[in-house]
Amino acid sequence: MATDTRGRMIRGAARMVGTRGASATSLRELAREAGVPLGSTYHHFPGGKHELVTEAVLAQGMYVDELIDRARTEGAGAALAAMTGEWRRVLERSGFRTGCAVLAVATEDEPDLRATANRVFDSWRARLTGVLVEHGVAADRAPGLARTVVAAVEGAVALCRAERSLAPLQEVTVEIGRLIDSAIDHRRGRRSG
Amino acid sequence: MATDTRGRMIRGAARMVGTRGASATSLRELAREAGVPLGSTYHHFPGGKHELVTEAVLAQGMYVDELIDRARTEGAGAALAAMTGEWRRVLERSGFRTGCAVLAVATEDEPDLRATANRVFDSWRARLTGVLVEHGVAADRAPGLARTVVAAVEGAVALCRAERSLAPLQEVTVEIGRLIDSAIDHRRGRRSG
Repeated sequence: MATDTRGRMIRGAARMVGTRGASATSLRELAREAGVPLGSTYHHFPGGKHELVTEAVLAQGMYVDELIDRARTEGAGAALAAMTGEWRRVLERSGFRTGCAVLAVATEDEPDLRATANRVFDSWRARLTGVLVEHGVAADRAPGLARTVVAAVEGAVALCRAERSLAPLQEVTVEIGRLIDSAIDHRRGRRSG
Repeated sequence: MATDTRGRMIRGAARMVGTRGASATSLRELAREAGVPLGSTYHHFPGGKHELVTEAVLAQGMYVDELIDRARTEGAGAALAAMTGEWRRVLERSGFRTGCAVLAVATEDEPDLRATANRVFDSWRARLTGVLVEHGVAADRAPGLARTVVAAVEGAVALCRAERSLAPLQEVTVEIGRLIDSAIDHRRGRRSG
């Protein structure tokens, strides 16, 4: 039960931070969102709001890590689709009010949380790099391409919120898909050449 | 003089919003940043913080619009370099503390400001679409590719802040440059084929 409350608080915090950012969100609001008394938040998160937000950002990171891992064998396009599919669901479910909690703390002025965001972005990049190399992208190109995937998808989620439409994510998925395909074809061309 | 104070307030607001977002910034702090008495902010911005932040986001938008326009004749790669060069300067000058004010309000929970961010993103996209078509990208592909450029550059700025490094912006510039080149080559291939 304790674990369940903790998980509910983390999921609620990811939603709220993905909606308004961390600095505009109080621990009281985070407790209310999760339906937990304020006092018991300190039981689960002795470090208060900072600890809860950190856990929420890391949990969002791990969730996407797992999506990438599961799509891995299917190919680089499948890994991209897994990421964009997750953000499409978050955007649709919230009527475009909620985006990525990791991006939110990356754009705020709290150095510790920005460092946490960096760990998550880097974990996504490392996983995507592995998928790209496995499916034929040159090892010296894959890290930069993986970073471009992360940047483009994160930027697209913000554009979708601004426009209240999924079009940016759809367009970015098409174009980044082409970029990945050409990186694979390029390698194949070199190999056979 | 009145105009000068107004301009100073707008530039200061763009910096502060690009650093901590709009919701965590008070009008008092915006006045202090610009070195202007709080009372005179209402003289210049009768609508208060909301009006000042809106103007700051639009000013940032127009500044980048002009950079794209000036690079236009040189080519699509030059337009991309103009955008990324501006963000590189902002990031370096602030020790990676400040990013894009437009992205900041796009990821907060203030519908009016999100709509303003959308106007700016769309203006960048329209201009980039024009540059891409002028330099040989198919008219039906250019809008989606232009949106991908905006999304990737904005995402890269957030990644640079998180990592306290210019590497994400540099890598994204290389990969998005390749994507643009291949979109131009593809069209040329079709034309000559």
